[in-house]
Parts: sequence; C-alpha cells; structure tokens
Amino acid sequence: QSSVADGRVDKIFASYSVYKGKAALSASPRLPTLSKLDSGGVKVDRKGSIMLTFWPAVSERKYDWEKKQHFALSATEVGSMINLGPQDSCEFFHDPAMLSSNAGKVRKSLSIKPHSDGSGYFFSLNVVNNILKTNERLVVPVTSAEFAVMRTAFSFALPRIMGWDHYTNQPLGTTHNN
Amino acid sequence: QSSVADGRVDKIFASYSVYKGKAALSASPRLPTLSKLDSGGVKVDRKGSIMLTFWPAVSERKYDWEKKQHFALSATEVGSMINLGPQDSCEFFHDPAMLSSNAGKVRKSLSIKPHSDGSGYFFSLNVVNNILKTNERLVVPVTSAEFAVMRTAFSFALPRIMGWDHYTNQPLGTTHNN
Amino acid sequence: QSSVADGRVDKIFASYSVYKGKAALSASPRLPTLSKLDSGGVKVDRKGSIMLTFWPAVSERKYDWEKKQHFALSATEVGSMINLGPQDSCEFFHDPAMLSSNAGKVRKSLSIKPHSDGSGYFFSLNVVNNILKTNERLVVPVTSAEFAVMRTAFSFALPRIMGWDHYTNQPLGTTHNN
Amino acid sequence: QSSVADGRVDKIFASYSVYKGKAALSASPRLPTLSKLDSGGVKVDRKGSIMLTFWPAVSERKYDWEKKQHFALSATEVGSMINLGPQDSCEFFHDPAMLSSNAGKVRKSLSIKPHSDGSGYFFSLNVVNNILKTNERLVVPVTSAEFAVMRTAFSFALPRIMGWDHYTNQPLGTTHNN
Repeated sequence: QSSVADGRVDKIFASYSVYKGKAALSASPRLPTLSKLDSGGVKVDRKGSIMLTFWPAVSERKYDWEKKQHFALSATEVGSMINLGPQDSCEFFHDPAMLSSNAGKVRKSLSIKPHSDGSGYFFSLNVVNNILKTNERLVVPVTSAEFAVMRTAFSFALPRIMGWDHYTNQPLGTTHNN
Repeated sequence: QSSVADGRVDKIFASYSVYKGKAALSASPRLPTLSKLDSGGVKVDRKGSIMLTFWPAVSERKYDWEKKQHFALSATEVGSMINLGPQDSCEFFHDPAMLSSNAGKVRKSLSIKPHSDGSGYFFSLNVVNNILKTNERLVVPVTSAEFAVMRTAFSFALPRIMGWDHYTNQPLGTTHNN
Repeated sequence: QSSVADGRVDKIFASYSVYKGKAALSASPRLPTLSKLDSGGVKVDRKGSIMLTFWPAVSERKYDWEKKQHFALSATEVGSMINLGPQDSCEFFHDPAMLSSNAGKVRKSLSIKPHSDGSGYFFSLNVVNNILKTNERLVVPVTSAEFAVMRTAFSFALPRIMGWDHYTNQPLGTTHNN
Repeated sequence: QSSVADGRVDKIFASYSVYKGKAALSASPRLPTLSKLDSGGVKVDRKGSIMLTFWPAVSERKYDWEKKQHFALSATEVGSMINLGPQDSCEFFHDPAMLSSNAGKVRKSLSIKPHSDGSGYFFSLNVVNNILKTNERLVVPVTSAEFAVMRTAFSFALPRIMGWDHYTNQPLGTTHNN
C-alpha cells in the first residue's frame, strides 16, 4: 500500500524531454539537500538545480543514452533563462572539477540562442575535456512551445530548488521560548 | 469522516466550462499515471494532459453531452497555448488510433485563432471519422477573460501533468549510501 | 495542540486590505464547496470566488464595517481582472437575488478603471437597492503596487477557487478495475 | 527519524544571496504568525514579509555579517518590486521604532534603481541612526537574472506571507450548522 503521497519514495523520474534530429534534451529538478542543525533548525546543505541532460542521436529516432552530458543550472542561471526575451541569448560556463586538482581540465558551456525567425532557441552544450582529449558539441533546437513549457515548469521549480517551499508556519498553540 | 485532504478520493470533477451559442467547452487536468520501480523509485508511466471536451448545443442553453468530443493537450501543446499572443494562432493534429490498425482513420484537429478585434479566440475542434463516415466541427468563442482563466489554470496544472510536483526532499536523517 | 497544518480549522481570516480616504477594500478567497458522490468521486458543489468587501470611511482613518458591501468575483471575472493592461478597464454586474422573487431589485456593479496617469485603478462598487430605496457608491483608488499584489494573489487563488488543487494522483499500487 | 515533511522544524535557512564587490544581499520569506480564535477560526496575527539583509564587504570576498542591516518588505512593497519594468525604480521608507518613544530616530530607506543599460538594478539601503549618530549606505548591484530569481521567488512567497495558502476546504461530510 505504498503511496506517492507519503513522500517516502527514493527517486522520481519525470523529465521533460524533447527529441530532435541530432540530439535529445531532457530537464528535471534536483532538489536541495537539507540538514538538521543542533539548534533544531534546518538549512540548505547543497543547493538545488535544474539538471539538463543532452544525448546524441545515433540513427533516425535512436539516441545513445550512454553518451549523455549533464549541465546543472543554478537558481540564477534558471532566472536568466526564464527571463529571456524572444531575441535574447545567454551563455553559461561550468567547470565540473572546480576546486579540485583537475580544475580547468574540463570546460562545459551552454549557450541558448534565438532562432533567426523568433520561433524558438538553439540549446548548445559544448564539453571540452582536456583529460580525455575530447570535444563534444550537442545542439537541440527548442520550439517556442517547448520553451514555454520549460519557462513555466522552471518557474514552478525555482522556489523549490531554493528550498523556499520548506518555509512553513509553526503549529498553533506551541511556543518555543518558554 | 472522509476527507478531501487525505487524497483517497477516486475522481475529481472540477472542470472549467464555458457555454456559448453553438457548443460548450470544458477543460480539466488529467494527471500522469505513476508506477513504482523495483529500485524503489517512481516513474511517470502515462503522461498527463489537459483534457478539452467540446459538446454541441441542441437548443437555446441546452447541450448534448452524449455528442461530446475530447482533445487531450500534451504538455508541449499546453505550452503553445499559454504562450499565444493576442494575434497568434495555433493548430494541433491528433490521431486517436495512432499505432493501431485503425491509424489514420480518425483525424482530430484543434485550432485556436484570434478574434479579429483581439477580444479572444475561436477554439475549433474538427473530427473526421472515416470509419463512421462523419465529419463534425465544434466551435466555441472564448473571451480574453476566459482565456486568461485557462492560461492561469493551465500554467498551474502544467508542472503537475508533468509529474514535477512529485519531486520532494528526502526525509532528514536518512541516508541511502550506508 | 491544534495545528494549522492539519487543516481542521474552521475559518481563516487573512484578507488583503487597502485603506484609503473614503473607503477600504479587502479581498480574500472563498474556496469551492465539494461534495462526495456515490461513485466515490468528488465534485465541486458550489464554485469558489474571490470575495471583495468595501466599507466606507466615517472619519479620518476610521471605517464603518457595519456598512460593508460584498462583491464575489467568479473565476472568469478574476481572469478579466488579472488580464487588465495598464489602460484597460472592466465592469461586472451582479444580481444577488437572481432566480428568487426579488430578482432585479438589487443591482450591484463593480467597475475597475485606470488612473489617467497609469499609476493604478479605481475600484468602484455601486449598489442600487430598490427594496430599501438606497443607492450606495464606494470608491477605492488602488495603486499599481497594490494591484500587483492582487494580480499575484488572485493568480495563486484562481486554480484553488476552481478546485484544481484537488486533482491528485492515485496512491501507487492500488487498482480500481480488478 | 525527523522529517522536513512533517513541518515540525523550528527554523529554515534557505536564503537567496548575491555577493558583490562592496556588499552582499540576501532575501528570505518571513511567514505570518497565526493565532487561533475562540470561534475556532484562525487569523493572521502578525503579517509576513520578505526579509532583505544587507551586509558589507570587508576585503575581497569577505563579508562582515555582524554589520548586517535588515529591511522587511511588506506585501505591497513586494508587489511594487515584482511589478518593476526594466526602466522603473521604487523607494520605500521604514521607521523601525515607529509608535515607540524613539519614533523618527532611526530612518531606513531602500531604493531600487535600474542600471542605465537596463542590465539590472541597484539595491541601496540607507540607515540613518540619530541615536548612535551613524549613517550607513549599502549598495548591491543585482543583475537581470538575479532579479528574475527574486521576482519568481517573491511571487511564489507573496500569497504565503499573506497567509493565503492556509485557505483550505473543509473535510467532506462534516457540517458546522447542525
């Protein structure tokens, strides 16, 4: 009698995915990790994100999930994306090994650029890996309708990846100072 | 002592409906079907949609529910609709028998076209049934105010038909790797 | 040990109120009444609304709550309001005795008209009561900032007064057809 | 086995923070305090707000939290902020000692002014304390992307700081008039 409603499931698979000629793109929220403080409070331990996953087509309508590449959008990068006007573009740079001894050896960049006719955006993920000597580029054209889904779903997810859905009123009639 | 809050009800009837001269139109969300994986996770089994139902007027303010026609908007079609500017239009094509031996025999199309004065949209559902040899067209004019209700309610429903409301934080104090 | 979170409270008082020179205006949602069907489903019995209450000033910063007048915005009227551009106006007419023997004897109208400089709207409630032979007019100027609060809060409330927050997934592992 | 989901945590730390050259700015909701009425209802006792905190940089990437200054945005001030167009500005004045014998002795003002190139806003908090004879000014430039995060998160929080998330349907099958 396990229930979704009781929140005790381990992992949810509910991505929004678009499949195009050369690659596919899927998006799903990664919620923050919370931890309990000795004071009784709760703090955000690891920030949440919107995880974008790109994976290439290998033949018509077949895609190779093994070759997937991730790009985790921070809250501010999500803000940049949902704020894009029809002619705007944006670009983000990530170093997955930042702060480690491999810093600078893998560079990921995501660019979002408008179609010239305003009918959507190109999402391009470029991964330059100087350890494996690889340079991969995955490009997915996203229509205005698909972008509207992302904008709406990302706006829904944004306060949640920030942990703001955890602010809740104290139960009535309880006091903590006496 | 049954409660709505405990979520154990079977079915909710809470459509948004507009009744016009020649037909009525109602909209309500269909949530995704989830299933539990052996891994303990949960995945979206069947995607959700916004179900539009059209049914014809038979006399003044009387409508024939038996002659209803459905059109289930996918997440991307909802994105297209909530993204419509005052002068924009869109059109969607569905084959309810797709992938069966009857594929291509019933064709449904929904078009949403702006009133010439910008005061709303015409929602037109056309169902061509080559098995029953029928061709039905149901047209409902939707005012800007009614469209604003749909836009707001569909934006609320969109992350939910995608299953994104099921992403929830793990209970604190539990670990999965040890 | 009563809790807000357990949802068993009788009534919530959490209006958004603005106090101006000649009258005050407050707004709060009225949720729909739901009833259980023999089939096990749940339907919306009485639709929800956003209740607007106007009451007059009697002296500086003193208001007479006894003279309050209500106007319950339907979902579509809320749609009209949240859709208003800076130069748009709208007007709604209600007959509180509609369908009774007093139909037509009390007429309420609410008009929302932009300030000439685009800095907000006038909310004017006119109540003509032909039984009591009264004609009252209550006008509250609403700034753009206050209107933005209403737009955001009404957009939050709209799916809820429609009952759309009650659409929830079935618990996993239960089936209804076997 | 304490859980975030059961809502019994004392305090949540999930601010949205931006760190800039001369100061840092963080924002988080303060929910309203509710109290139970003898009638069984619940009312908002103390209104909620969005708490902004500014604190100065003392050296490169080091900030002095001890010198923090707060500014609590009311619902209407949040409405003003989320309504700002790219060229708009707004300014709010608070007296933290209002209604006490120290009224007028400390004056806080928050101004939000657009960058000349439309790429964001300057958030400037000025605190003039005539008791301590201090005059502090903390300025944080906020990019359009960061402002979009605030707009989306503040729009999420606004109905909640107003207490509107507490409006819930009565459990089915219960009546209060018999």
